[in-house]
Amino acid sequence: MKLWLLSALVALLCVAAVPSSAEAAAAGEDEFMQTAIDEAVNGVGKGEGGPFGAVIVKDGKILVRAHNQVLLTHDPTAHAEVQAIRKASALLGRFDLSDCVLYASCEPCPMCLGAIHWAKLRKVVYGATRYDAANAGFDDSYIYEVIQGKAKVLQVAMEHRPGSGDDRPFALWKQKTDKTQY
Amino acid sequence: MKLWLLSALVALLCVAAVPSSAEAAAAGEDEFMQTAIDEAVNGVGKGEGGPFGAVIVKDGKILVRAHNQVLLTHDPTAHAEVQAIRKASALLGRFDLSDCVLYASCEPCPMCLGAIHWAKLRKVVYGATRYDAANAGFDDSYIYEVIQGKAKVLQVAMEHRPGSGDDRPFALWKQKTDKTQY
Repeated sequence: MKLWLLSALVALLCVAAVPSSAEAAAAGEDEFMQTAIDEAVNGVGKGEGGPFGAVIVKDGKILVRAHNQVLLTHDPTAHAEVQAIRKASALLGRFDLSDCVLYASCEPCPMCLGAIHWAKLRKVVYGATRYDAANAGFDDSYIYEVIQGKAKVLQVAMEHRPGSGDDRPFALWKQKTDKTQY
Repeated sequence: MKLWLLSALVALLCVAAVPSSAEAAAAGEDEFMQTAIDEAVNGVGKGEGGPFGAVIVKDGKILVRAHNQVLLTHDPTAHAEVQAIRKASALLGRFDLSDCVLYASCEPCPMCLGAIHWAKLRKVVYGATRYDAANAGFDDSYIYEVIQGKAKVLQVAMEHRPGSGDDRPFALWKQKTDKTQY
């Protein structure tokens, strides 16, 4: 066999054996989602919290994984996404996670969606929805309705009491020269 | 002076000296709000975070106070309200703060409003607004617009990828007999 023909055959075999980058990314994304779901299952099994899991991915690899720990910690903010963001920020030593992607077993609630924005995450991939969560007895969908002005009953009374110096913190912030805006 | 007249005078003096319960509550509420504002000012002074403070009140007394510590901790979720909720929950050993009231120097962002709902707080009193926060460079108002479907630009891409076992955690949760719903 001529050398050029052998080379061409080897090249063809390599192309066929190695998945495209798109396929590799999709396979990775499936793994990330499965890990998030496994986290949720593990959390329920341990009795640490509700059925929710999340992973944060950086440079194509899982950086941290977390599940809901509200029952274990007594911290009502210890949702899977918040726990993952806290872990990732602690690990990287920065609040800015704009180079990371979050995979969640379920659509983030408004608290977690807010946390995702503050962490500057650019992308979120989620499996189940707020309606699946509602069907399991969780208030995600209700809190969305409150913020959207669609809730018929308000569980939390919000009282705006302006004045009496509430502009002092902002005035101080604006005149601070060495501040880090986040 | 006759005894009944003296008694009546003493009673009148007592009524005049002791504020009504409404006045006492109002004075207390002013103190709570001032403490929240002072926390915000202290936090900025120490360089620990943005210009936001909060207190949680239980049985008419301040249980915990907190300020934003995003810059100190690198935790993007370390807003004043979230920090206060975490402290109060740790102190009381429960995620349910339905017997508490939160005072915040500024209107809670969607993340904090979500946390407030998950903590089952029944009342929030706030001073400055989301628009004051926006004026100082914070995204509170923007995140409200995202959730309300009013944002013109979406900073976070949300990708719904259903299926592939994302119902497993909920199925496990529903069949769990010893669970605590929160």
